[in-house]
Amino acid sequence: MTEALPTTVPEGQAEPRARFLRACNQLPVDATPVWFMRQAGRYMPEYRAIRAKHTLLEIVDRPELAAEVTLQPVRALGVDAAILFADILLPVIPMGLGLEFAQGEGPVIHKPVRSLEAARQLRVVEAETDLGHVLETIRIVRRELPADVPLIGFCGGPYTVASYMVEGGATKDFRNTKRLMFSEPAAWHTLMRTVATSMENYLVAQVRAGAQAVQLFDSWVGQLSPSDYVDYVQPYSRQVLRAAMATGVPVIHFGTDTATLLRHMKDAGGTVIGLDWRIPLERGWGILGADVAVQGNLDPVSLLAPLPVLRARVDDVLQKAGGRPGHVFNLGHGILTHTLVDNVRAAVEMVHEWPLPNTSL
Amino acid sequence: MTEALPTTVPEGQAEPRARFLRACNQLPVDATPVWFMRQAGRYMPEYRAIRAKHTLLEIVDRPELAAEVTLQPVRALGVDAAILFADILLPVIPMGLGLEFAQGEGPVIHKPVRSLEAARQLRVVEAETDLGHVLETIRIVRRELPADVPLIGFCGGPYTVASYMVEGGATKDFRNTKRLMFSEPAAWHTLMRTVATSMENYLVAQVRAGAQAVQLFDSWVGQLSPSDYVDYVQPYSRQVLRAAMATGVPVIHFGTDTATLLRHMKDAGGTVIGLDWRIPLERGWGILGADVAVQGNLDPVSLLAPLPVLRARVDDVLQKAGGRPGHVFNLGHGILTHTLVDNVRAAVEMVHEWPLPNTSL
Repeated sequence: MTEALPTTVPEGQAEPRARFLRACNQLPVDATPVWFMRQAGRYMPEYRAIRAKHTLLEIVDRPELAAEVTLQPVRALGVDAAILFADILLPVIPMGLGLEFAQGEGPVIHKPVRSLEAARQLRVVEAETDLGHVLETIRIVRRELPADVPLIGFCGGPYTVASYMVEGGATKDFRNTKRLMFSEPAAWHTLMRTVATSMENYLVAQVRAGAQAVQLFDSWVGQLSPSDYVDYVQPYSRQVLRAAMATGVPVIHFGTDTATLLRHMKDAGGTVIGLDWRIPLERGWGILGADVAVQGNLDPVSLLAPLPVLRARVDDVLQKAGGRPGHVFNLGHGILTHTLVDNVRAAVEMVHEWPLPNTSL
Repeated sequence: MTEALPTTVPEGQAEPRARFLRACNQLPVDATPVWFMRQAGRYMPEYRAIRAKHTLLEIVDRPELAAEVTLQPVRALGVDAAILFADILLPVIPMGLGLEFAQGEGPVIHKPVRSLEAARQLRVVEAETDLGHVLETIRIVRRELPADVPLIGFCGGPYTVASYMVEGGATKDFRNTKRLMFSEPAAWHTLMRTVATSMENYLVAQVRAGAQAVQLFDSWVGQLSPSDYVDYVQPYSRQVLRAAMATGVPVIHFGTDTATLLRHMKDAGGTVIGLDWRIPLERGWGILGADVAVQGNLDPVSLLAPLPVLRARVDDVLQKAGGRPGHVFNLGHGILTHTLVDNVRAAVEMVHEWPLPNTSL
């Protein structure tokens, strides 16, 4: 089965040794690699200890702190990759919008973008000057990480970032975002051009700083119909994804509620496509095709269940992946706040112990 | 094309004349019928005038007021069906839980159900005694409605109602609901049995009181994976849907985010299956099969767009339905608060004016 699959290791590059990078490139692995979206965060006592003394923005502003938080889950869980501790909305600060994390309310952007004029005033992010602290975090983390644990950089998908910029915060129905999209296409496209170019700069700079893979978090893109995705979002996601892929590192393209968007997301780009729990993994992979790797797709609430239930659910995902090279185990979305660290650690062990059908490397 | 389709008019019943009922039964129509989920509500000045004097629960407690609100959109919009003005959570009051609509926060249930003991204490709703005011509303509305505008009754889907009962209100991630489902299956199934039997009683009583069609609103069911839907929800949805179908009226089975659940939802039951905007209508109908009618599936934000944009979006849905008998035009979810009444009225006209390929009745 392995023989038939194309490897996607960029020409001239050596085969990676790290399990996570091998799976991204659809190469055989000794065990399925696993990491978790939001693996650093409030569910960990080590993180809460730091958050008791610093706000979220303070942590990401201080590379030493952000690096420490990035490394916490690697030490505590035994995951196969670290992911940069940052927030998808950091770039809106240098773009010229205020950003605040209000107590219990999530992000608040004080100057939402709802007109062509407002969209025109946004400036493109230059990562080295505007987000140098994030790049510095990457450099620190790379020095600290074990050689077999790669660091994943990330940014938000243009749609998801733009939706916060238009709504001014979280939203249930994306009414302002879609109203701008449907009613003022010139404003929408101006906004998306600036966001996409900023994300492109940011992601490429992360790779230059040392990120060994990157993920585009387009978490809310599944709120769109396929035709709206193609018309209003795909060109901008493509711009960011293609620029990231041109650096040679694996690129993970993630969204939720994407059952009807998967083909279009693959068409936009990505070495690995993220699947949420709403689509059975083998069905999602079938839609995407064998020439791409997949990441996912355990329901995050599974980590709140007793261990035998968790084990059955982890096994189910692995069975659906069928041991084919190109599966990165993960959740379908981020770890929930009330998750027990012991359960996450147990899930990592379950994934690693699961016997792959072909373990001859 | 029409000839090949089975009519689903129950044996011994005459062919209905009303456009909406004909479409539910996949019979040819003179124009595509249209109504809107949440067509009565805050976007209408007539409704706001009543809400200025009464709370939501006061309106639904007083049949004359609830009937008036039910009739408002029929008069203002020219829609092809009325839908009972009520709330899917009304049955939790006689079940023994407190219900309140807090300012700007949506429903609040003060005694959430999170254990087997709490689930066991719930009593099954007997509609005639417990929700007689709703049935009285139906009787009043039927007297007032024009003969060609049928009245749709409704209840919440067992999963959706249970999720509010477990969470105690709205939720982003359904973590308590799924935790109960995954970790305490005995509690979950006890809860679902009581909810399903209550909804069955309630829906059948609505038909006896005069509802000419009913809809099961399982709005949040799309948060589940297909296998969790089948294991934990489908038997209860089936119980309610089959009981409703046995009365002989058309039954609409609605959810959102359901692209991967459609086959299982059809298997549970329904004369008509609701589609949200995430799946192109012809693709959803293709998955469901030609032996069922469909309802949908305009993105509700389309009603906030300028008329030419709205028209293009309405036309797109109608073109995808292709004039096949068995399409009820609707949104993919409810009307949003800031929608303009004029736009809704214009959409009704657009749907009615759209030339069906076969208008020979």
